[in-house]
Amino acid sequence: MSREFKISFMPAERTVYVLPGTPLMEAAARAGIILQAACGGVGTCGKCVIRIVDGECAASESEIKALGSARIAAGDRLACIATVSAPLTVEIPETSLFDADARILVANDDRDTVAVTTIHKTFRRLQPPEHGDCVSDCDRLLQGMTVRQVRLDMLRALPGVLRRSNFEATVVQFDDDVIAVEPGDTRDRCYGLAFDIGSTTLVGTLVDLLTGNQRAVTARMNSQARFGDDVLSRIQLCRSETGGLIRLRDAVVGDLNDMIRVLLSESRVAPEHVYRVVLAGNTTMQQILCGIDPSALGELPFVPVFNRGLETDAAAIGLRLPAAAGVFVFPQIGGFVGGDTVAGILAAGMWEEGESTLLVDIGTNGEIVLAHDGVLTATSVAAGPAFEGARIVNGMRAAAGAIEKVTTGNDGDLMINIIGNRPATGLCGSALIDAVAELLCCGIIDMTGRILPPDELPADIPAALRARVRVQTEDDIMVILAHPEETANREPVCLYQKDVRELQLANAAIRAGIDLLLRRAGLESRDLSVIMLAGAFGNYIRRRNAVRIGMLPPLALDHIRFIGNAASLGAKRALLSRAAIKAVDVIQQAVNHVDLSLDPEFQMAFSEAMLFPEQDR
Amino acid sequence: MSREFKISFMPAERTVYVLPGTPLMEAAARAGIILQAACGGVGTCGKCVIRIVDGECAASESEIKALGSARIAAGDRLACIATVSAPLTVEIPETSLFDADARILVANDDRDTVAVTTIHKTFRRLQPPEHGDCVSDCDRLLQGMTVRQVRLDMLRALPGVLRRSNFEATVVQFDDDVIAVEPGDTRDRCYGLAFDIGSTTLVGTLVDLLTGNQRAVTARMNSQARFGDDVLSRIQLCRSETGGLIRLRDAVVGDLNDMIRVLLSESRVAPEHVYRVVLAGNTTMQQILCGIDPSALGELPFVPVFNRGLETDAAAIGLRLPAAAGVFVFPQIGGFVGGDTVAGILAAGMWEEGESTLLVDIGTNGEIVLAHDGVLTATSVAAGPAFEGARIVNGMRAAAGAIEKVTTGNDGDLMINIIGNRPATGLCGSALIDAVAELLCCGIIDMTGRILPPDELPADIPAALRARVRVQTEDDIMVILAHPEETANREPVCLYQKDVRELQLANAAIRAGIDLLLRRAGLESRDLSVIMLAGAFGNYIRRRNAVRIGMLPPLALDHIRFIGNAASLGAKRALLSRAAIKAVDVIQQAVNHVDLSLDPEFQMAFSEAMLFPEQDR
Repeated sequence: MSREFKISFMPAERTVYVLPGTPLMEAAARAGIILQAACGGVGTCGKCVIRIVDGECAASESEIKALGSARIAAGDRLACIATVSAPLTVEIPETSLFDADARILVANDDRDTVAVTTIHKTFRRLQPPEHGDCVSDCDRLLQGMTVRQVRLDMLRALPGVLRRSNFEATVVQFDDDVIAVEPGDTRDRCYGLAFDIGSTTLVGTLVDLLTGNQRAVTARMNSQARFGDDVLSRIQLCRSETGGLIRLRDAVVGDLNDMIRVLLSESRVAPEHVYRVVLAGNTTMQQILCGIDPSALGELPFVPVFNRGLETDAAAIGLRLPAAAGVFVFPQIGGFVGGDTVAGILAAGMWEEGESTLLVDIGTNGEIVLAHDGVLTATSVAAGPAFEGARIVNGMRAAAGAIEKVTTGNDGDLMINIIGNRPATGLCGSALIDAVAELLCCGIIDMTGRILPPDELPADIPAALRARVRVQTEDDIMVILAHPEETANREPVCLYQKDVRELQLANAAIRAGIDLLLRRAGLESRDLSVIMLAGAFGNYIRRRNAVRIGMLPPLALDHIRFIGNAASLGAKRALLSRAAIKAVDVIQQAVNHVDLSLDPEFQMAFSEAMLFPEQDR
Repeated sequence: MSREFKISFMPAERTVYVLPGTPLMEAAARAGIILQAACGGVGTCGKCVIRIVDGECAASESEIKALGSARIAAGDRLACIATVSAPLTVEIPETSLFDADARILVANDDRDTVAVTTIHKTFRRLQPPEHGDCVSDCDRLLQGMTVRQVRLDMLRALPGVLRRSNFEATVVQFDDDVIAVEPGDTRDRCYGLAFDIGSTTLVGTLVDLLTGNQRAVTARMNSQARFGDDVLSRIQLCRSETGGLIRLRDAVVGDLNDMIRVLLSESRVAPEHVYRVVLAGNTTMQQILCGIDPSALGELPFVPVFNRGLETDAAAIGLRLPAAAGVFVFPQIGGFVGGDTVAGILAAGMWEEGESTLLVDIGTNGEIVLAHDGVLTATSVAAGPAFEGARIVNGMRAAAGAIEKVTTGNDGDLMINIIGNRPATGLCGSALIDAVAELLCCGIIDMTGRILPPDELPADIPAALRARVRVQTEDDIMVILAHPEETANREPVCLYQKDVRELQLANAAIRAGIDLLLRRAGLESRDLSVIMLAGAFGNYIRRRNAVRIGMLPPLALDHIRFIGNAASLGAKRALLSRAAIKAVDVIQQAVNHVDLSLDPEFQMAFSEAMLFPEQDR
């Protein structure tokens, strides 16, 4: 293990530990902060400017040229170029954030009203009823306001709230519906939750609806995984077992409620100040979470129950939030192209771009969207949960203790980086890709994915690296990534032959999907102006390695861009903006859905992609 | 007891037993069927025509003149003139019903669509999904339909419903919202419920939304009565006791659920075919039923929590109906002029009339509305539950076994009529009024309401009548209405001095309210073109007796009209017509609310009205 440096980001108050030489953009991504990179991260667009407020960080020639010496002296750097060589405190301006345009703060045109895009709060200082003034509580409260409907819960709370607060209260509206009333002036407390519901991984974000700022984020495994680790096994459970749907639903609803508890207590936000929840997941996950039987997704022609975005409330879903909290479930495109893809398209801005672009969202299902000639085409491939650490012998989620990066040092041996600077407990998806790429490079793994036994290894492999390859039986060969002294339980963390096979399957599914979408549109990979990589773990992948193992076609790295967890990002936008909610319905209707599962060409492309690309050693 | 005749009404299949000489209009009212009587029931407008299909019923000169001999020969009669002298089977044409215009049957402009005014059902015969057709269940079902929102419950049911029914299903909409989907063609099953929520009496009506026909009606005491028999005692419970509101709410919700069970089983309607419920009650009853604290109604200036009509659903109220069933709660005018009065104004058509008219809705609270010069003014007086049989020693609701009518026979003795032709168990409100009126007439009760002891009785009183007056102690004097041999428990049913006092209080409150509304508008009672009498028991009152005891001002009887249970009738209209729902909000905003409770003039008028009017013996 080489020494890592602590990088703190302001104002988000996030901290990560990274190896020397890591670009600040990658460090920020590790911290969940995705920066703008219109040029693909090559230092020309200048949109990723950040400021070093503490610590040493040398400026390059191209940064001086782009920013001028005065700004360099003030600490400004370009995050795509500047690299880590010491502990740093870094300030990130709002304008450099990838999702800056989602942070819509509506001007206060009325001193009494703070308006955000979806939830409005209005403070009212009322005259208490006096002799002869028997105006109803509700009319008194809402006088002069535009109101369509008033929720019964709100009326139930109203008389008590007004009389406890000496008739000073805050009205909460979603559009023209009054959803709550609170004693006193609570305009400064207004929150929403965005959830990315993956088959394997769940990501929850608490968002301040007044500023658009993310207040807290948390991730965990989807407890449904104990019933089967891909969507098909979950659908099968619903088909075969009475109560299967309810068990799966209870599992994920329980997860979300745990995450809500964590997010709220971490940021000291009261549940009653959460007014809106946005859910984005694949079709099966969304239907199960809503309690809608996904059985028809398990047989031809894979029919979802709904397509349009769905408005409901926290009580109907079973979330432990006030019953009036609205819930928006993303629209779905097809049986296996769900709300998470719609959210990704929204976040990536694909539906408004003119160029040919590709979005690859890597999860248990890999969703691939091609924008070309103004047409959006989407498909889904079953990648399996390998990238999320499941089905891998020593696999784990990208959490503290996970090996998240594998590189080759100057001595030719492998170097690892562990999340949280502690002994290793396993490896996560990005390390899996790294390890296979590095081992392909040095010839320990061959084109077919076979780990060569010591007696077949090339002669030029350094002794330390060679010593990592171990054979238990003829069929059981492995590469040690972390030696016993580097791990928590004193057992080595290894990459097994079986793990490489899992990676090959996942890898081939994604690559075959990409190739087929391109082929159908009459395109070659070089026609793409950009490939956008998304997914809960997308920002941890090394682009070079993704190309090296053949997951992505051989494109120059500046045409491959990380856009972070696009589903979460899209969900956040829908939380903050009415326009985004309208846009997703447009997207849902505009996208062509391609089902590759029965396409013989797909089987062919898949077989081809099972072989790793030839390497220049 | 004199002999009663059985009168059966078609097509409603209702039966009542009435005394000879009873006008058919009154008999119909007893059966809950209110007929048109634009002329005030004097045989000139011809709107109350009915047909005798079995039994003897002599035609009068004026009927022959109005209808012609051919129609008379065919059995047609005027219900306001024709009287009972034999058992009859009577057919009532739709056009003669008071609420005929509420029965709006929209023409089928599309063979697949049966449209009613508030709930729409559409039958869909769909192509099941085949290879390559992966349109979602929801889009498949709703293709070509105008849809605003889809309920989550409906989506949960959808995949099962479609696949159980070979993709033939019926869509249920309220406006543009899809609230349910049902297997097969269920267009012929479409029901709603209208409830009149009185402090003492609850009336529920099951309505066929396709035809506007009443399918079943049921009434029962409000179980809240065990916590106190007027609204003030209920409000007091909410103010003084934690959980008081919940106890009261649970009581009335339990009552409604019992009534729903009775109504549905009686008419063999499944709960899932009830799509809409309309609730009309006084302000306190509506707020308690909705779970909204009525405490502020218990102190000056008597502020209600809401005024506008409220849209919610069965689940929110706690009704045992599908969660998606919509519930409309009537708008409220003021603390003591509630949804039942708005419903009454709607049913009486007062808001569109040009003449000066008065609506008197008699319940535990008496609501009085004056229409004059295009302005509506409403007030409420606390009449107490005496008219509904409570606080009366032998009082009971107008149900089987209740003495409902007291008259004086040719022999000068009292005659009684008992509901259901069985031994008496008590007396209801109409009999209370009758008894006092008859006893005032013959001099047994004096102007101050005192029952004269036998030694003070006028000399000309027949022996049989005189023998009915009994003295227990000096303060405990009574008149026997049913002798032990006429009663169920062999104890006499009596009118006690205390009962007369209760009647005086109720009577005086209503009369004082009427007088004050008239005085404020600068009117005399003779300026009124009509007084409309409403209330759960309003149609049982003898108009002559209501005038004799001074409850109503001395108006010619053809200016006093029964309009039945106007609150139920208005609720039924709101169930059937979108226009009615709009109208009630207009009414709510147009009505002036007058609070008489603190008006010193009211106290004066009340004291005056405590004395019975002088009689011409």
